Amino acid sequence: MTAGLVPSCSDALQALPTPVLVLDETVLDRNIAAVAASAREQGLALRPHAKTHKSIEIARRQLAEGAVGLTVATVSEAEAFAAGGLRDLFIAYPLWLDSDKTRRLRLLLEMARVRVGVDSVASAERLAAAIPEAERAALDILVEIDSGHHRSGVLPVESGAVAAAATGAGLDVAGVFTFPGHSYAPQGRAAAARDEAAALRTAVDSLAASGLATRVVSGGSTPSAAFADSSVLTELRPGVSALGDAQQWELGTIGPEAIAVTVLATIVSRRSGHLIADAGSKVLSSDRGPVSTGFGRLLDFPEARISVLSEHHATITGVDLPVGSRVRIVPNHVCVAVNLADTYQVLSSGGGVTSWLVDARGRNT
Amino acid sequence: MTAGLVPSCSDALQALPTPVLVLDETVLDRNIAAVAASAREQGLALRPHAKTHKSIEIARRQLAEGAVGLTVATVSEAEAFAAGGLRDLFIAYPLWLDSDKTRRLRLLLEMARVRVGVDSVASAERLAAAIPEAERAALDILVEIDSGHHRSGVLPVESGAVAAAATGAGLDVAGVFTFPGHSYAPQGRAAAARDEAAALRTAVDSLAASGLATRVVSGGSTPSAAFADSSVLTELRPGVSALGDAQQWELGTIGPEAIAVTVLATIVSRRSGHLIADAGSKVLSSDRGPVSTGFGRLLDFPEARISVLSEHHATITGVDLPVGSRVRIVPNHVCVAVNLADTYQVLSSGGGVTSWLVDARGRNT
Repeated sequence: MTAGLVPSCSDALQALPTPVLVLDETVLDRNIAAVAASAREQGLALRPHAKTHKSIEIARRQLAEGAVGLTVATVSEAEAFAAGGLRDLFIAYPLWLDSDKTRRLRLLLEMARVRVGVDSVASAERLAAAIPEAERAALDILVEIDSGHHRSGVLPVESGAVAAAATGAGLDVAGVFTFPGHSYAPQGRAAAARDEAAALRTAVDSLAASGLATRVVSGGSTPSAAFADSSVLTELRPGVSALGDAQQWELGTIGPEAIAVTVLATIVSRRSGHLIADAGSKVLSSDRGPVSTGFGRLLDFPEARISVLSEHHATITGVDLPVGSRVRIVPNHVCVAVNLADTYQVLSSGGGVTSWLVDARGRNT
Repeated sequence: MTAGLVPSCSDALQALPTPVLVLDETVLDRNIAAVAASAREQGLALRPHAKTHKSIEIARRQLAEGAVGLTVATVSEAEAFAAGGLRDLFIAYPLWLDSDKTRRLRLLLEMARVRVGVDSVASAERLAAAIPEAERAALDILVEIDSGHHRSGVLPVESGAVAAAATGAGLDVAGVFTFPGHSYAPQGRAAAARDEAAALRTAVDSLAASGLATRVVSGGSTPSAAFADSSVLTELRPGVSALGDAQQWELGTIGPEAIAVTVLATIVSRRSGHLIADAGSKVLSSDRGPVSTGFGRLLDFPEARISVLSEHHATITGVDLPVGSRVRIVPNHVCVAVNLADTYQVLSSGGGVTSWLVDARGRNT
């Protein structure tokens, strides 16, 4: 057993101080192409969720492969991407417009076509009161429905009433959307996609009963996307599939070859029964999904587990390595790990290392 | 039930876009004074862990109240505080010096007195090889021991051998340190402090048996600090007690009146049985401690719980409020929540809101 790099850790990574977020450009480009091809085959528009990567460069590559626009979670994420030239943005969130968000959304509507989610009559009316009629040309409304994740969103049968209230207030309701987040449960992928389709169908009927047509029927999470029902959906919004993470690996959505983001870490301590790496919750996050077997995986040692995580310590079991070794840790949930970094260190297709900004890091408002 | 602010939410906070990290200066100053007074009464030097607040302004206030120096977790945190004029820094971590960290530690030793942890003969020898003898005047070594948390650190009886190796390599070993992190277990506070004292005593004896004196015997976590044994310890390193968090509240270490940091959030959705606030894991973090009852608490509604947390949604049960209400959420673990923000919005003693940088945010290397 000799200290040093893990087998597949290139010379270019050797010089980086650890812990550090590393993006493999070859895997990224392959993932972007595969997700786009899959949506095309399903006959669905693709609007990837950019809260995952928060990167203008990655967003541009997604559009170049055929994505129709981006999904974001917040007004400030939309601002970051609009500033980067991305001009078709869906804020897939039930916004409550305070004075600051109103001011910023109005500016955004001068730069981009913007869809906004609502899930109550109150929030629809507030939106209508906040955005003057003359400024609504680039604004579309989508009603959020709950398809079984039980977070935000109205019941499907109630969506017509919310849509009618929005329309009555002078807003243009383009359709409905849902996030079938229960696709992250063990064996939940296909069942969540069935729930999603059924709920969206009910919502379309509910709008029709209110005399409203539905141009956009938007769904899709990374685990459920392969099972999406294109007889009702028009659009998918997967996020994680561009980058991959341990949660998707353990769910069976992807294999390790589709993991584009890892945290390069150094083994700093070795004890009987475990190792300590210098990557903790401040670089990996402490997210654990329903199927997670620990706090992250090691890309080169599939049998290893991160059994405990502190702010600057990952306790690793199931593999033995000398102190000073470098390992590639796969975060459980890449969206929150990316949000902890200012930059990606990009292992470029050519073999060198370059740096890309995490443009929308910390954009929560 | 009327929409609006929670009772104690001041006008100055009303204008802030949510979600946002808010620091109450009055509570902060009271906490800093109380922690300092407690250490003085115990006859222990106080070296607060600055990984909690990552703020030069807060560090200066801690030193003004009598702290002898700061504890940090990484070389880059030390750099941030040295740049802010803090010149007595303990990197309480078993550093493994690669070429980048060596270069930076050597620069740091020109600016500050620096203590570094080691927990193996290999890391001590690497440190000695990396730092030329002529540059060691401001460098002290502390051997990390495991007092029951079972993370990094050598067994107490092995500390003499590591210290002897470090001394033999020409390093100045000042003493020993430990982190009794098992103080976070239910009812674990006093027992962890007893383990800490016993382990440190054994370590002092182990160094003595190798012919080495011990100037510094450093311990202490926020939950165990009140029980620290001053017959063996010389110094305490609590971090969280400056700011407070839900974990300490639920452990019984503090009451809600000692919570200085909250995330101000807006209720964006209201369903039968739960509310959704716009603060998720990208602002609160998803940390849960052994005694946590959820993903955070509401400062003004102690009966409420955050039962589920996504990136931009907190599912709140146990309280009903109108959409548009603002609530103050207490993060489970303030160290990781602070690391997600670029600034504190500070509710100043005078009543206005100002802004302080989180100077060492993201300083993980």
